[in-house]
Amino acid sequence: MSHRVVVIGGGFGGLNAIQSLRRASVEITLIDRRNFHLFQPLTYQVATGALSPGEVAYPLRAIFKSEQKVRVMLAEVAGFDLDARQVHLTKTLGMDAAPDPVPYDTLIVAAGSSYSYFGHEDWREFAAEVKTLESAIAVRAEILRGFEAAEIMDDPDARQAQLTFVVVGAGPTGVEMSGQIAEMAHDTLRRNFRAIDTGTARVIMVDALDRVLTSFPESLSRKAQRSLEHLGVTVMLNRTVVGIDDESVTVSDDGGTTERIPAKTVIWAAGVTASPLARQLSELSGAEIDRAGRLTVEGDLTLPGHPEVIALGDMVRVRAADGAPVTYPGVAPVAIQQGHYAGKLVADRLKGRATSPFKYFDKGNLATIGRGRAVAQIRFLKLSGLPAWVMWLGVHLWYLIGFQNRLLVMIKWAISFFTHGRSARIITNQPAESVAPPTPR
Amino acid sequence: MSHRVVVIGGGFGGLNAIQSLRRASVEITLIDRRNFHLFQPLTYQVATGALSPGEVAYPLRAIFKSEQKVRVMLAEVAGFDLDARQVHLTKTLGMDAAPDPVPYDTLIVAAGSSYSYFGHEDWREFAAEVKTLESAIAVRAEILRGFEAAEIMDDPDARQAQLTFVVVGAGPTGVEMSGQIAEMAHDTLRRNFRAIDTGTARVIMVDALDRVLTSFPESLSRKAQRSLEHLGVTVMLNRTVVGIDDESVTVSDDGGTTERIPAKTVIWAAGVTASPLARQLSELSGAEIDRAGRLTVEGDLTLPGHPEVIALGDMVRVRAADGAPVTYPGVAPVAIQQGHYAGKLVADRLKGRATSPFKYFDKGNLATIGRGRAVAQIRFLKLSGLPAWVMWLGVHLWYLIGFQNRLLVMIKWAISFFTHGRSARIITNQPAESVAPPTPR
Repeated sequence: MSHRVVVIGGGFGGLNAIQSLRRASVEITLIDRRNFHLFQPLTYQVATGALSPGEVAYPLRAIFKSEQKVRVMLAEVAGFDLDARQVHLTKTLGMDAAPDPVPYDTLIVAAGSSYSYFGHEDWREFAAEVKTLESAIAVRAEILRGFEAAEIMDDPDARQAQLTFVVVGAGPTGVEMSGQIAEMAHDTLRRNFRAIDTGTARVIMVDALDRVLTSFPESLSRKAQRSLEHLGVTVMLNRTVVGIDDESVTVSDDGGTTERIPAKTVIWAAGVTASPLARQLSELSGAEIDRAGRLTVEGDLTLPGHPEVIALGDMVRVRAADGAPVTYPGVAPVAIQQGHYAGKLVADRLKGRATSPFKYFDKGNLATIGRGRAVAQIRFLKLSGLPAWVMWLGVHLWYLIGFQNRLLVMIKWAISFFTHGRSARIITNQPAESVAPPTPR
Repeated sequence: MSHRVVVIGGGFGGLNAIQSLRRASVEITLIDRRNFHLFQPLTYQVATGALSPGEVAYPLRAIFKSEQKVRVMLAEVAGFDLDARQVHLTKTLGMDAAPDPVPYDTLIVAAGSSYSYFGHEDWREFAAEVKTLESAIAVRAEILRGFEAAEIMDDPDARQAQLTFVVVGAGPTGVEMSGQIAEMAHDTLRRNFRAIDTGTARVIMVDALDRVLTSFPESLSRKAQRSLEHLGVTVMLNRTVVGIDDESVTVSDDGGTTERIPAKTVIWAAGVTASPLARQLSELSGAEIDRAGRLTVEGDLTLPGHPEVIALGDMVRVRAADGAPVTYPGVAPVAIQQGHYAGKLVADRLKGRATSPFKYFDKGNLATIGRGRAVAQIRFLKLSGLPAWVMWLGVHLWYLIGFQNRLLVMIKWAISFFTHGRSARIITNQPAESVAPPTPR
């Protein structure tokens, strides 16, 4: 029987691990809760109607259709039995019992992270994130509904609250969302309404730190902030969010002065927390976890004491040669490189070859702000404006999996660049009240 | 002040009414519960993953962006005050009160129809339809989940129930859904699974009548049935559905013999019922309604006694010269022609011109079964197979609103014709249990 590799998670990490195992004599089982790979760097574009869900999601089965040795399971991991080397699954898909545990010889866990609400789980209801596809679709509906509600409202205060969009977090996702919403309001949706001027919409980006895009050099942060302000975004720095409800966001400055901002739509793009599977692996193995729930793995990404278990991506920190854990940025290139490394490690072992510890090759840092506006840092090169945006566009298109997706997205972007359009503006997940009226119409 | 026209419904009827009023001196308010026009003849393709939701839906505001005299309201009609000439709206979009009533000089109601479950409302939960976009997305997820569940199940009976798809109704929608599901199982999804052979999936189409596509000549019905059977669909005619639950469909033949078919996925494509707004207008005006809830309007589509109120599309029957009400087929061309007629009637009146009663120009009848398979009847011409399918393709692409949609859909269809692919196969509306796991992963 060939070596059984079980991969948890069909994100960049998992897919690239499998990719590196293509020629190895292994049988692979990929377990994911979703039936698609999600191109996370562009998921936020679904939230602003620039892309359709199908353009950033690709069915896992279609990816591995021709790879007979890869089996895909749509299932959710309940836990691990590290001694018996088995993955336990939850009851799913309306089945009467949980599926049988899945045995492994090597386990690769690449389960990612999700947004953390800093212990304020009650905020989740009012401040959706744009990391999962479902949530991005919900945010799209919420943003569009804000404009729709404003159009049929008479009270000016209520109207302004509908037209106020608060983005919490000034990292790449927060910057991109703020820029895109501002573009929607000031450009795409202009002339679409009759009672309101969408140009009066306010987009407010709040962050507790003193600059935007802190992972970039200061000069680029300043440029990005100016670009945002040019698009009409109000950038509120050094402000902590202290409250979110159905009607407003309350922020507090360093001195403790609070301000309540009436706003119906709030988007959460602040801190992330590792998959709870990181904590489970920590409890089973005694490995450290940090405050963000990230598991500390060895330099070769293996679980301490369990060389047959590999964990990677933004659910882990990696122990450096000096023993200190290193936190890599939670971006796709890290997951891709660690995935490749994990696959190679398994293949090398099967051939009896040693593998040197994981080394991250930092290709640079990119963030887009709007049409023709972006910032980029590649080693010592700093770019902003159109050149950075063109680079951002090229890199993202290149990595979009699947020929068809790449082609359609390219056409769509070309069209929307020239027409300022935004075609994927449908509201599909209407709240119960409007989806299911008392009687069908 | 110019003449105020209120149009209810942004379907084919409503849009074409507005189109015919472009040059008239009127102010138009379009009220719809959805923010998009839905290309209903292709909505079922969303349910099988052949098209993405955004490809059959187009934002109403984008359509009327440059028409300053058209105002779009995302709202739901609560009722009418025919004396005061006002439309009342329901409370919506999280507002504290319902929006102000909308006054009209002329009212055009084109609110369409929905599926009727023959008084078995409890079946709706187990047998979704594919007429609304939301429901089509849900059906897509359900079909795909059937295959996913079968892949991880061991019990052969439970597996077969997951792989059994029952379509109720042998009209165009039922035929198209059956054919497409069979193609998915026997072609698109083949080689995508490891534990199951998707070719063992059963697609069963049930109808109480003795042939499929009864709106077509008998010879085409026979050809369509043979095409379906060739695709692997089991066609069960002369069978009445007497029960649907979470696990099965029970059918009864003429002699009263019942058969229980274990099936997890049931698609409802049987009878339709007119919008409840038809009944409201009937109660307010004394106009007749039939068993399917359709309102009887005059030969010029006006409400009896209320020439300022026009109703059209598949929510009405039209009184002929001899006084008998005529039921037109519930297809797009009828709504399009009646919409045009309604717009022209209003424009003519404003100019003091008389308009002759509505006359339907029957361009023919088209139904598709699968890739390269369709039936078509145009006057005395009967087509089947590839020529009918090419015609079907051309007609549908032509009518798809919006340049971009038309282009993208054409590319997608070209790709999928050659690759047998089906790219929009993502499951987005996961049930609560899997969308919101106890802890984020």
